[in-house]
Amino acid sequence: MDSATFRTKVLSRHLHNPQSQQSLIQSSTCLSYSPPDQSEPILFDTQKMRKLMDGHHWEHRDMVYKLITQSELFVPRDRGGRVFVSPDYNQSMEQQRVMTMKRIEYLVRHGVFDGFLTTDELRSFAIADALGSYDHSLGIKLGVHFFLWGGAILNLGTKRHHDKWLRDTETYKVSGCFAMTELGHGSNVRGIETLTKYDASTGEFVINTPCESAQKYWIGGAANHATHAVVFSQLEIDGKNQGVHAFIAQIRDTNGEICPKVRIADCGHKIGLNGVDNGRIWFDNLRIPRENLLNSVADVSQDGQYLSTIKDPDQRFAAFMAPLVFGRVTISSSAVYSAKIGLAIATRYSLTRKAFSITPNGPEVLLLDYPSHQRRLLPLIAQTYAMSFAGNYLKRLYVTRTPESYKYIHVVSSAFKATLTWHNMRTLQECREAIGGQGLKTENRIGQLKSEYDVQSTFEGDNKVLMQQVSKALLSEFVSARKKKRPLKGLGLEHMNKPCPVIPSKLTSSALRSIDFQIEILCLRERDLLNRFSAEVAEYQAQGVSIEKAFTLTYQTAEDLGKAFADLAILRTFLEAELAESTGELKDILSIVRSMYVTTTLEEDAAFLRYGYLSTDNAAVVRKEVTKLCGELRPHALALVKSFGIPDAFLSPIAFDWVQANSWSAVRN
Amino acid sequence: MDSATFRTKVLSRHLHNPQSQQSLIQSSTCLSYSPPDQSEPILFDTQKMRKLMDGHHWEHRDMVYKLITQSELFVPRDRGGRVFVSPDYNQSMEQQRVMTMKRIEYLVRHGVFDGFLTTDELRSFAIADALGSYDHSLGIKLGVHFFLWGGAILNLGTKRHHDKWLRDTETYKVSGCFAMTELGHGSNVRGIETLTKYDASTGEFVINTPCESAQKYWIGGAANHATHAVVFSQLEIDGKNQGVHAFIAQIRDTNGEICPKVRIADCGHKIGLNGVDNGRIWFDNLRIPRENLLNSVADVSQDGQYLSTIKDPDQRFAAFMAPLVFGRVTISSSAVYSAKIGLAIATRYSLTRKAFSITPNGPEVLLLDYPSHQRRLLPLIAQTYAMSFAGNYLKRLYVTRTPESYKYIHVVSSAFKATLTWHNMRTLQECREAIGGQGLKTENRIGQLKSEYDVQSTFEGDNKVLMQQVSKALLSEFVSARKKKRPLKGLGLEHMNKPCPVIPSKLTSSALRSIDFQIEILCLRERDLLNRFSAEVAEYQAQGVSIEKAFTLTYQTAEDLGKAFADLAILRTFLEAELAESTGELKDILSIVRSMYVTTTLEEDAAFLRYGYLSTDNAAVVRKEVTKLCGELRPHALALVKSFGIPDAFLSPIAFDWVQANSWSAVRN
Repeated sequence: MDSATFRTKVLSRHLHNPQSQQSLIQSSTCLSYSPPDQSEPILFDTQKMRKLMDGHHWEHRDMVYKLITQSELFVPRDRGGRVFVSPDYNQSMEQQRVMTMKRIEYLVRHGVFDGFLTTDELRSFAIADALGSYDHSLGIKLGVHFFLWGGAILNLGTKRHHDKWLRDTETYKVSGCFAMTELGHGSNVRGIETLTKYDASTGEFVINTPCESAQKYWIGGAANHATHAVVFSQLEIDGKNQGVHAFIAQIRDTNGEICPKVRIADCGHKIGLNGVDNGRIWFDNLRIPRENLLNSVADVSQDGQYLSTIKDPDQRFAAFMAPLVFGRVTISSSAVYSAKIGLAIATRYSLTRKAFSITPNGPEVLLLDYPSHQRRLLPLIAQTYAMSFAGNYLKRLYVTRTPESYKYIHVVSSAFKATLTWHNMRTLQECREAIGGQGLKTENRIGQLKSEYDVQSTFEGDNKVLMQQVSKALLSEFVSARKKKRPLKGLGLEHMNKPCPVIPSKLTSSALRSIDFQIEILCLRERDLLNRFSAEVAEYQAQGVSIEKAFTLTYQTAEDLGKAFADLAILRTFLEAELAESTGELKDILSIVRSMYVTTTLEEDAAFLRYGYLSTDNAAVVRKEVTKLCGELRPHALALVKSFGIPDAFLSPIAFDWVQANSWSAVRN
Repeated sequence: MDSATFRTKVLSRHLHNPQSQQSLIQSSTCLSYSPPDQSEPILFDTQKMRKLMDGHHWEHRDMVYKLITQSELFVPRDRGGRVFVSPDYNQSMEQQRVMTMKRIEYLVRHGVFDGFLTTDELRSFAIADALGSYDHSLGIKLGVHFFLWGGAILNLGTKRHHDKWLRDTETYKVSGCFAMTELGHGSNVRGIETLTKYDASTGEFVINTPCESAQKYWIGGAANHATHAVVFSQLEIDGKNQGVHAFIAQIRDTNGEICPKVRIADCGHKIGLNGVDNGRIWFDNLRIPRENLLNSVADVSQDGQYLSTIKDPDQRFAAFMAPLVFGRVTISSSAVYSAKIGLAIATRYSLTRKAFSITPNGPEVLLLDYPSHQRRLLPLIAQTYAMSFAGNYLKRLYVTRTPESYKYIHVVSSAFKATLTWHNMRTLQECREAIGGQGLKTENRIGQLKSEYDVQSTFEGDNKVLMQQVSKALLSEFVSARKKKRPLKGLGLEHMNKPCPVIPSKLTSSALRSIDFQIEILCLRERDLLNRFSAEVAEYQAQGVSIEKAFTLTYQTAEDLGKAFADLAILRTFLEAELAESTGELKDILSIVRSMYVTTTLEEDAAFLRYGYLSTDNAAVVRKEVTKLCGELRPHALALVKSFGIPDAFLSPIAFDWVQANSWSAVRN
């Protein structure tokens, strides 16, 4: 009989009697755990890789990790002979808030925050990363106090504010919060309704909440602990609204009692971050001294004159948003560390958990030896590497900021905050499903991390709004260059001054892995989408549609463009890190990881097919290459997640001997 | 100057000074809430639509809703003059478990479960839908007791078991659990290690847990309340393993004390479902009477002979998995109701929440008037309509089951369980982000629903494993038909006997909306993917690769094929419901909703571009059509979610007057 018929027969025989032998055999054997650390190869220096990915101050990170594992406050638990630390999420919101504050006091006592605002910002970022890796509530409560409250004083205040508040902030003599968002206005800060007027007769500002929608909302620290707030409010001078300004107001006295003319209510229970006491604030014509206006951008004289070196209200507004950038930098970085924790746990588990057999009578197979499981986790590991480099780049960009670089930082921090936090949520969800029910156990962290980090995609600017701002900034750059008939400069758009890249009609594996191609295809996408976006907007305008309306109608192209910008910018940060390495195993691994990052980007964004950057033939080549890369990275899976540098105690029982951890003998511990 | 230069000038002027006027104006006005129920049109009979989507027993659903709103046990809360019910998720796991049991006792007292297992199954499904809409823990704890424990007795037991247990189950005289999953084996049930032998000298079965990995795990009800368990175990007779069988074992006595030879431990805190007491069970050679083998499939005689009418161990195994199908039917349906709650809340909020302005000096715009926001929510509403019909179809299919239809039910229930639960999670995440921070407040439900329902994608069979089974079943059908040179019959594959559909090179709006085209393009995808899948598997086999290995290497095509099967099957259920309607507004709306379902399916699955079912030109037409459909459905948004029939009290404060609900006057309530 012909081979087709033969194959059909074989196939059908198998299909109608799968694994029946196996089911009779397996049941007699018993599962045992074997540590991947003994069976999996380590073919590059994971310590060196860890330092490369942490980027800076790993010794300070280790110091924090050590401090945390040394105190009962961080709830150490023995699980089958190993100790793990993480908060008790079975506690009520009220209990979790108390514990978070106690942990902060412990860290203050150990001098962790000395010079946190006044010396090396990069060091502060590293410490924040490490503390957030223990618990997002801890990271956020600290972030609000230091990076939002402290950052506002630092960036919006002047010497008199620095002298008065910074040191007391580091020692927690004052506890600060950041009162920007209102019930009625979140991402649209321009629209906030809190109104502040100046009373020249007393030299005071009068802050008022004119209506319920103007109540300050989601204010971290306000419900229980904050003594002071940076209040964002419209400033009205002589009946003229000068736009949003920032003021310092005391909201609690030294006994923790709420001050007169201030009302505070709780935001209540949340799906995560219950260690953060989010509250709502109403101001009843609260009077504060004139000096409490954070006056680096604008000031009001004793006699009530409004003074600002920045005449354009939009530029003034932008200046007042500076602290948010501070926040976005830390959010981006914390998202990467959360993804690292999820992937380290899920990967370790998938190197010890077996399911099903792929040969009759054969033993069950490790999850990570299934191509489908490799496809779930390994690309996410590669993307997390890329985003580590992006996060470090963003931090360095921020600490070396200048007035000139502000706009670029705003665009990059917006694109990275959105991309890295979306990546984090996607990674945690994939990891949670990849490890099955174990992902739902709070002690295994991954499922809980989803609830704790979900907020990231909408706070400090809704991700979609931020990505629109990125696209608008690119368009603005593009249009003004075209208008001035000048080559494009800035925002990484210089590549558009060169001829359009041409993608080979038949891609090969080696082409796909070459840096030049990888840069070119991402440039091609950004370039084409920016052209499309500009054309679409102009077309609507030609039809008499307002620019704002036109933007709402072209959102899909804008979203694609924002993604194109982010992916390309992230690849550049990867290359910067990779090319700085000397030749060797580490660099070799990095190049495979980079190719995985790019090829999965090509495979996952339908825009490449939709707009023809990839033909269906080339798309098929890309898909094959991803599978190939999965095979190449599989042996390095353990080493790759070891290199994340997350201490074992910060992972979870299923990342190690989960049979022992679940044994009866462990129950009574 | 030429128009292009002019447009560029206008564009750049706008870009460098966006909304500056507006920022000065807006701040003076104050937000007020206006109910969409007064402003939004209702252009079709939402009561009729609700009945169509509920499909059956709406009066029993309403009875349950009423019972729930009548008792303090369901934690009614006043929020700005409206009462909402939902559990207090700020309670500890222990408290939530107590409350869930108290709610069940209340429902038992009110006779809700009389005849639950012995009369109309559809009615039971309706009641389960409604109870689960209050709290997933309540739904799951009941589902384990009735549909898994009770379903096992019903489907795997015989008269002696029915007489002894069914009535006591309805009255909760016995509280059942379903002990299938083990620490070492979840989706791969064949591999479970619990071992049962028969002792002819006493006429007893002896159930044993031979090793730690064999401990029963995730057993809902085991930790606190269950008195009895259906135990799935390998059955060994005279040293020969007869495969997995099901036995009834008592695990607690009438005083709630754990029985001798049984050890139980807690699974601990979870990210959701903390109202369900999941536990772990060890059996130490527990002896049970011979009659406790659920013997509809196989039996053991007094003298120890193994008797089964089904000789093929695989068919026997399949028969023992029947209760899981029962579970998958209810899971699929509950996923749809969860998505409905999320969409009803998010849509209502987006019809009252404004953000930004799209005209200089203009007022802020309703979220749902942004095309991007319409694109986020309206397709999900359409998909939820489609999945409602799919869920109802599945329920009817199940209650009219016959031995002949079992295989088809298994395939459809697997495909729908995976698709509907993935849709639920995706919908909840999109809704949560679409309403910003409010989605994180537990009282607003959406965020909490994510944690409560996340389990659905991996329990009762991991979704990815289920989808692989679907593809394998299709392939098996395909291969045996080809082998027997017979036309395809069953699993909806008959369309493959006809010539391959041809998609017009230039799609039009009307073509896209025609039923014929919609069926044809989904048939084309299923047909082509099944051919590809078969070819890929055969090719690997030709290379000497085992069938099992071949399946692991072709997972991507298998996943695409599973999705293709599910989407087509769901469309058919939609058409069945739509075509049964008489001409009128309702039918007109349904056809728009159906077109939205199909076009978004075409837009979202890259397979249509990847495999060329859609050219890039046609893909562009599809994308335009989705936008057009968003515009057409926008006026019906409120009516569409009203038709979900979820009582207001089951929604949340932000679905109504959220300004009032958050006002200071409401704080003290």
